[in-house]
Amino acid sequence: MNDARDKGLTLNPKYDRDGLITAVVTDAESGDVLMVAHMNEEALGLTVQTGFAHFWSRSRQSLWKKGETSGHMLQVRDMRIDCDQDAVWVKAVPAGPTCHTGARSCFFRRIGPEGLTAVDVLE
Amino acid sequence: MNDARDKGLTLNPKYDRDGLITAVVTDAESGDVLMVAHMNEEALGLTVQTGFAHFWSRSRQSLWKKGETSGHMLQVRDMRIDCDQDAVWVKAVPAGPTCHTGARSCFFRRIGPEGLTAVDVLE
Repeated sequence: MNDARDKGLTLNPKYDRDGLITAVVTDAESGDVLMVAHMNEEALGLTVQTGFAHFWSRSRQSLWKKGETSGHMLQVRDMRIDCDQDAVWVKAVPAGPTCHTGARSCFFRRIGPEGLTAVDVLE
Repeated sequence: MNDARDKGLTLNPKYDRDGLITAVVTDAESGDVLMVAHMNEEALGLTVQTGFAHFWSRSRQSLWKKGETSGHMLQVRDMRIDCDQDAVWVKAVPAGPTCHTGARSCFFRRIGPEGLTAVDVLE
């Protein structure tokens, strides 16, 4: 345990070997997890500064303002960082479906003993 | 986009180069994000089979049943997988504080323009 990082009040993200931290976005109203993505230092800074979620796209290797093309932006209501500062929790108001499949949340399938089942995340 | 993985009903996790997927745990009652950790194939299987959250500890390089030593286990109520199957969302009932610092959630600090502030996640 690194006490300063784990308990202090200095922002000191623990970026991984690719320069990224994990970002979890929940719906500020329902609390549902909408998506999980990654932020580099620039994306984290822009998210804090602008109030709209920015990420680092690992597949495209580029900065990505969520909703830049789809219009389905994520307006930030609150941001938290975890104990070891390698993950952030973004509470956001989504302007539309968050998932590229058109689902409200990327987590639209339940894992069960028999495999996956589609679920309505509005339930 | 891989249509079968993104939209199908076959569990086919996309493990990273370390054999891991991201696991987000929320409180089944409050919806708060409690922790973010990682699962390998064994941890995912044990979580589904036993109904208690298991992870892969990257720092200890070992399988880890959450609460094995502290008693603060996470009883699974629901599990979801995201579109590209590299992250799971676990809704759980925590038997005690989830964070090793003693906080109820690992996300006990807010990120603001001025740095971090401690918050009560029960608010």
